[in-house]
Amino acid sequence: MTQALDPLGFFSVENSVDCVNARMAQTTDPRHAQVMASLVKHLHAFATEVSLTQAEWDLAIDGLTKTGQISSDERQEFILLSDVLGLSMLVDAINNQRPAGATENTVLGPFHVADAPRRAMGDQICLDGKGESCLFEGRVLDLNGDPIEGVCIDVWSDNAEGFYDVQQPDVQPRGNNRGVFTTGADGRYSFVGIKPVPYPIPDDGPVGKLLAALGRHPYRPAHMHYLITAPGFQKLVTHTFVSGDKWLTSDAVFGVKSTLVAQYEAIDGGATLWRSPFDFVLTPED
Amino acid sequence: MTQALDPLGFFSVENSVDCVNARMAQTTDPRHAQVMASLVKHLHAFATEVSLTQAEWDLAIDGLTKTGQISSDERQEFILLSDVLGLSMLVDAINNQRPAGATENTVLGPFHVADAPRRAMGDQICLDGKGESCLFEGRVLDLNGDPIEGVCIDVWSDNAEGFYDVQQPDVQPRGNNRGVFTTGADGRYSFVGIKPVPYPIPDDGPVGKLLAALGRHPYRPAHMHYLITAPGFQKLVTHTFVSGDKWLTSDAVFGVKSTLVAQYEAIDGGATLWRSPFDFVLTPED
Repeated sequence: MTQALDPLGFFSVENSVDCVNARMAQTTDPRHAQVMASLVKHLHAFATEVSLTQAEWDLAIDGLTKTGQISSDERQEFILLSDVLGLSMLVDAINNQRPAGATENTVLGPFHVADAPRRAMGDQICLDGKGESCLFEGRVLDLNGDPIEGVCIDVWSDNAEGFYDVQQPDVQPRGNNRGVFTTGADGRYSFVGIKPVPYPIPDDGPVGKLLAALGRHPYRPAHMHYLITAPGFQKLVTHTFVSGDKWLTSDAVFGVKSTLVAQYEAIDGGATLWRSPFDFVLTPED
Repeated sequence: MTQALDPLGFFSVENSVDCVNARMAQTTDPRHAQVMASLVKHLHAFATEVSLTQAEWDLAIDGLTKTGQISSDERQEFILLSDVLGLSMLVDAINNQRPAGATENTVLGPFHVADAPRRAMGDQICLDGKGESCLFEGRVLDLNGDPIEGVCIDVWSDNAEGFYDVQQPDVQPRGNNRGVFTTGADGRYSFVGIKPVPYPIPDDGPVGKLLAALGRHPYRPAHMHYLITAPGFQKLVTHTFVSGDKWLTSDAVFGVKSTLVAQYEAIDGGATLWRSPFDFVLTPED
């Protein structure tokens, strides 16, 4: 019942990849040509492997269109789609393979801001008075275990209700649960925030619909974000996760790594209820 | 320099596909699970094969977002993206494999309308008086070569300036270069339109930028669209192409098949300058 290869070499199921990729001009930037040729090859292999129906493709086109249309300056639904398909973590992992002993990367997420308030070591970053107070402390070290001076540590977390300040500009104080710190010669850092809480990624759009159709929940396990930079070292984008969190093994965006699960120890007495120690180990550049 | 597989089975480059696909609930619709698992597998294979950089993925996210945002009721940029990557033709080809001798499908395109004017055999469909007049005629046959009665033939083409009526609602008469015809017992059809002209797909958006970056032109070779339906036969969505067209071997959307290239014969005398004969052969259902 199938037709032979088109006698003049026109498009057919059998030669579809070659047909499309042969169309690129010789002048195409070689890296762009490589990436697009691989994308075409794998997308065509997908459609062929599952014998994708026209109705299914129409549904995909509609979903992709809505994913773009719900996106705005405040919401990036395509990043969310990439996140829940594991693509964001895969791209991060491909580009940030580190030597044994170095702290691992995880996804940046959409809630980092460039201009978080600079604070002194030991400062409080929780400004809304909500949540269980927690002391975060530790050292930033090189691969030899020596402290690194002058490290910029940018931290951020959700508040006790599961929202970042930028998600609630009319509710939360600006800079709530955020701060930027710089290490001294001892490489030590410390600040007081809250024990983060788990939260769902926005699930009222196309990505939420997809998760529901796949029987997947939208929750991320509780975590503190870190963006750590120092001259001569690779940028470290990571989280520390709250050990024992209900969603630790089913993070909706696959961000958890074993080495990033931090301890939270109860503190007796005082206003600060928890202490979470964690040392970061940076990888030299190159 | 690479890390070992995560000791607790968390996400890593090596197990990324299993990690994501294991997350689907057992209750997921089996076909949906199959399609999504294959999509994840092939997208991850793509990212890994080319070692996709973060900057490249960011660029892709931005391009996909803009592709959704430029789409509207009048413009579907994601279909265009699917078209130029050969995916639309691939899905069409996968789902419409026909026996030898049957007329092949090609893409529907975005310019079909559901309520084109019904006309009598031999009628003129060109209402704006522009272009080179052409008689289209032939028969609709079954696989045995017998004529089929009561076939609905829906035809449409661009006007002499390369635009469909729906693209220029304020310029072209409604129904210009469109018509719906029904065959009699002889299976014959005939109508007078214009010899179609090539035109560029809309190239002022993200898809146009992509084509330019790949050194590809946006042109489609001249063609007449047909949507042919008859009880007991598979729906035929196809074009006939103008033989000798400059873009025949480089259709921006890969729609050309050898068997769909039609002859255009010059006619001596009279107002009608061309004649394009073409017989359509329908495939029985099942």
